[in-house]
Amino acid sequence: MKVQPERLREIGIRLLERRGTPAENAWLQMDLFIEAELRGLASHGLQRLPLLLSRLDKGLADACARGAHHWSRNSFLTVDGQRGLGPVIVMNAMREMRTGLRENGLAIAAIRNANHIGMLAYYVEAAVADGMIAIAMSTSEALVHPFGGTQAMLGTNPIAIGIPCGERPFILDLATSIVSMGKINNYAMRGAPIPPDWAVGPDGRPTTDPKTARAGAIAPFGGAKGYGLGLAVELLVAALAGSDLAPDVRGTLDDVHAANKGDLIILIDPTASAGQAHQLARYLDRLRQSRPLDPANPVSAPGDGARARRASALEAGIDLPQSLFDQLIALKAA
Amino acid sequence: MKVQPERLREIGIRLLERRGTPAENAWLQMDLFIEAELRGLASHGLQRLPLLLSRLDKGLADACARGAHHWSRNSFLTVDGQRGLGPVIVMNAMREMRTGLRENGLAIAAIRNANHIGMLAYYVEAAVADGMIAIAMSTSEALVHPFGGTQAMLGTNPIAIGIPCGERPFILDLATSIVSMGKINNYAMRGAPIPPDWAVGPDGRPTTDPKTARAGAIAPFGGAKGYGLGLAVELLVAALAGSDLAPDVRGTLDDVHAANKGDLIILIDPTASAGQAHQLARYLDRLRQSRPLDPANPVSAPGDGARARRASALEAGIDLPQSLFDQLIALKAA
Repeated sequence: MKVQPERLREIGIRLLERRGTPAENAWLQMDLFIEAELRGLASHGLQRLPLLLSRLDKGLADACARGAHHWSRNSFLTVDGQRGLGPVIVMNAMREMRTGLRENGLAIAAIRNANHIGMLAYYVEAAVADGMIAIAMSTSEALVHPFGGTQAMLGTNPIAIGIPCGERPFILDLATSIVSMGKINNYAMRGAPIPPDWAVGPDGRPTTDPKTARAGAIAPFGGAKGYGLGLAVELLVAALAGSDLAPDVRGTLDDVHAANKGDLIILIDPTASAGQAHQLARYLDRLRQSRPLDPANPVSAPGDGARARRASALEAGIDLPQSLFDQLIALKAA
Repeated sequence: MKVQPERLREIGIRLLERRGTPAENAWLQMDLFIEAELRGLASHGLQRLPLLLSRLDKGLADACARGAHHWSRNSFLTVDGQRGLGPVIVMNAMREMRTGLRENGLAIAAIRNANHIGMLAYYVEAAVADGMIAIAMSTSEALVHPFGGTQAMLGTNPIAIGIPCGERPFILDLATSIVSMGKINNYAMRGAPIPPDWAVGPDGRPTTDPKTARAGAIAPFGGAKGYGLGLAVELLVAALAGSDLAPDVRGTLDDVHAANKGDLIILIDPTASAGQAHQLARYLDRLRQSRPLDPANPVSAPGDGARARRASALEAGIDLPQSLFDQLIALKAA
């Protein structure tokens, strides 16, 4: 079914406020979910709201926490998320990072003890809108096997990079797994086989059965290189945020444990250097206009697809499963 | 043929010194080449020396330049490479970056106008040996096509990440292309076909003929995600170093043009945070001991393979093509 974003926002804010969430925090959390839905990223959208409400009810998430900030070095912000809502903790940290950014040229925030921060593109887009370059990384429960391995030992460890370049900025947001667990769940629901290179089962053998895959491990994207990148995210976040490593991470998919993954945000002020936003924009346009492999599919730059999906969802409404909508309405009525 | 590293080092230093290279700079440039050879990375090894000598002869490389440093912000070092030797410019910049790193927690160096800096692992290993986390990026001539595209528009844009974690640190060094042009050249020499997903020919169609591929474009690694990462490197380097974008880059493969690509080095002091080197090392060991897909090929961590190859090459000598060795000897006798 199609639902207007503002209707969903209102329902969600109501549900969050009823659990003591300050208006500003409720708006931010819902804005994150709705922006994910608008881009077609349902796995990071409203389906996460019921779990979050349960975490609030159980005290695993603190709706009022804003995060405790400590500048352990001039350009290094250490953040204790105090079990706060992911987007609240990150956006507050980014506000604090602006302090001295002009003077220092770059800053890093290392965040632990925050709830799931969701779609990373949200944060790098916000930074880009303020004229900054941003790099964001996050870790998660162990779902991904090493290259040449078969056991789930790494998180899906997304990395996002945002670079200002005119009206259509560069916004990259990728998980370092070949596919999300959400997509494998979707294949399972439809009873469709998955491609043979996506996952192994609990016996360590490649499988095309999505249910077997769910009990096993997802492959990293791009072979040894993607594995290396995902592992780099795993180690950088743990080393700098003091968070736990994937096999010990809990709390982004359950309502039993505190969230002990970590998050990193790096901001760079491009005015510390040449900047070149205009040249970058022109170069991206050259890429978009270059000869495609398939004439029906023009070359695009990271961020283009999400922008297009967002624009059409803003008009047509968000495509939500009826069952999820009914669940939200029932929660609201409860 | 097998040659002892010290023999090659001596020949190379002699050739460089004869062109006015200070002893320290000649040692560093040769150390970079030899460390690449020891790791089996011939494409970044001694085969690049004759070209570099020619660049020195023509004034496209300045053997004495040390790079002009300007702290445009407290944590942002702008470096004009003054046509200097790549490793000389980078190692000097890294020395300068140590200033204030303890105080600021991190620093970035944005370098333009340096000659080819070669294997990035060299620099992140040096930083790790000093207890720092390092991220290095570099751009190059246009050799790679966009995902869904067919024209060479991006550099091979390598990224390296080094993280201290005990005796076997994490050292990742990857080109964002699916394969190097050097490897395609090697297939061409042997007359062997390349896999169909490596490259397209000048007509934009996928090809298995390495000679056709050389005139076309290499694929990015890992599909849309690897393309996004390679493009992020392209834009970050150009935005921060003020260097040129791939279609206009020259000077790392020829002896006609000044090198106008750029390089970025980010250093982070892990003592600004928890550090956790011990936990990271234990986690990497768990990965290495996890169940492999093929019992004959244990899981490894980035850096393990290069360390093993280096150790055996130190014993057995460097495997150099006879023709390249003869060329070096002839240059020395000239």
